Amino acid sequence: MANYYIGVDVGGTTVKMGLFSEAGELEEKWEIPTRTEEGGKNILPDIVESIEKKRESLGAHINGIGMGVPGPVTDDGVVLKCANLGWGVFSAKNELASLTGVGNVQVANDANIAALGEMWKGGGRGFDSIVMVTLGTGVGGGIIIRGKILTGSMGAGGEIGHMKVRQDETESCNCGGQGCLEQYTSATGIVRMAKKKLHPGSAKLEDSCLNGKEITAKAIFDGAKADDAYCKEVVEEFGRVLGLGLANVAQVVDPEAFVIGGGVSRAGEIILDVTKRYYNDHVMFALQNKEFRLAELGNDAGIYGAAKLVLE
Amino acid sequence: MANYYIGVDVGGTTVKMGLFSEAGELEEKWEIPTRTEEGGKNILPDIVESIEKKRESLGAHINGIGMGVPGPVTDDGVVLKCANLGWGVFSAKNELASLTGVGNVQVANDANIAALGEMWKGGGRGFDSIVMVTLGTGVGGGIIIRGKILTGSMGAGGEIGHMKVRQDETESCNCGGQGCLEQYTSATGIVRMAKKKLHPGSAKLEDSCLNGKEITAKAIFDGAKADDAYCKEVVEEFGRVLGLGLANVAQVVDPEAFVIGGGVSRAGEIILDVTKRYYNDHVMFALQNKEFRLAELGNDAGIYGAAKLVLE
Repeated sequence: MANYYIGVDVGGTTVKMGLFSEAGELEEKWEIPTRTEEGGKNILPDIVESIEKKRESLGAHINGIGMGVPGPVTDDGVVLKCANLGWGVFSAKNELASLTGVGNVQVANDANIAALGEMWKGGGRGFDSIVMVTLGTGVGGGIIIRGKILTGSMGAGGEIGHMKVRQDETESCNCGGQGCLEQYTSATGIVRMAKKKLHPGSAKLEDSCLNGKEITAKAIFDGAKADDAYCKEVVEEFGRVLGLGLANVAQVVDPEAFVIGGGVSRAGEIILDVTKRYYNDHVMFALQNKEFRLAELGNDAGIYGAAKLVLE
Repeated sequence: MANYYIGVDVGGTTVKMGLFSEAGELEEKWEIPTRTEEGGKNILPDIVESIEKKRESLGAHINGIGMGVPGPVTDDGVVLKCANLGWGVFSAKNELASLTGVGNVQVANDANIAALGEMWKGGGRGFDSIVMVTLGTGVGGGIIIRGKILTGSMGAGGEIGHMKVRQDETESCNCGGQGCLEQYTSATGIVRMAKKKLHPGSAKLEDSCLNGKEITAKAIFDGAKADDAYCKEVVEEFGRVLGLGLANVAQVVDPEAFVIGGGVSRAGEIILDVTKRYYNDHVMFALQNKEFRLAELGNDAGIYGAAKLVLE
């Protein structure tokens, strides 16, 4: 009977699942809805039922189940809270193990498993210490050191979106703080910057290709690629802030490489170029010229990383 | 025959050594000069000779030797460069092992072993994930995660003194950068801040207890304790910058506790109070209220941490 591993990535609306061979190949992937009502009490049973069906249809043996969830998780697999799922504090690892009878179960934070997945099969291939930053609606982070997730003592390791990178901010971040990396480098943060007058003497929005159009992160990067002065200034400021933030992360963990993912990263090489340039300006000499890569796995990074948690 | 472990802390002028029992007790400590001439080629032979003499006089067996050096070292014990010792790139671990015939040899960076020592027997006792920051002439850092040093891919993990914490700096740090944590929170950085006019409307140096005296970090903290307005403003700014810097470190590694050491930390609880206050202002909610402790081992932290490297 063939042996398989399951990678599960629990999101606020859908649960993504992947079936992996012992060789680490993704054989099949599917999704089920996330039922968050009643404190999310159906989520794990739904996952277990879906895995059981898959197992039966394949006549296969499940050797291990890895799972990522959108909230802090300790190294022991204890979820400290998942507001999006309605979950409080409990051992998701123990519960999943007891519901399935599978002994080899691991649970981790979703941003952290995405980083592990990208290192294993995506943009971070070939490295064993990476910092992944995910630029989406918010800014998430995951740090892998010598192949292991840097979980942190309360599961908050790698929460780099809320590093403070500017002292002159007057608006508040969703976290309540001011000057968070997320306020400048998330999709919404980039738009926010673009809507403000950057500084006296900067290019004018009226003269820009953005004038009169809906301002989106994509439009700004497209404008910059087309040499629009206003968009280029926004992209420079984006790079300055992200470069500074990642320089400060490097001063702490000295990774081999940075992997940049999330919707914003679809803008491509322009992101790497501008970030790398400011990174090198802000980091100490010994840490200069690290590798910068784009993420490659998109929404599958989580199931890859989740499987990798148990696939060794 | 009794079994012992040796902890070695190599500095630019002296090498500190400690003899530890199997139970981890420091039985004896001593120093020898660091001979940095001729590319530091005598340093390791001098250390080996000193250990050998000690071993003979005790009729003891040496089970392990741990060593800290003032420069980046990989997890494999390869020194990447030690400008202060005249050393280039070589495996200090292999060389020390071959010169002594002792198999259990480990080498690490000096700031990192000080952190390990403080966690084992000093201010970080009872924790297994700490960030240590050493406020001396410069600012050093060492990070321990689950009992292991966070070395970094090129031995530069924990170099938090060169995180950029202010964007408005015009003077340069020793590293060449501007706005480094070290420029505000080292002994020299605190004096530098005190000699500048802080901001319009701030207390006046002429009205301060520092007026006409030599301005030192100690005098500033003493003045603040005695309620001197000028000194208190300098201490607030010190705390604001250090609190912000450590908040950003926490967003990356989520430690259990911070340990503050180095000469500046002799000012005592005032350092913890002001730093903790600003730390909580700058860090995300889940990371608030971490433990802040003063270092306790002083100059012995290095030999403790070096011994701990091999004592398991």
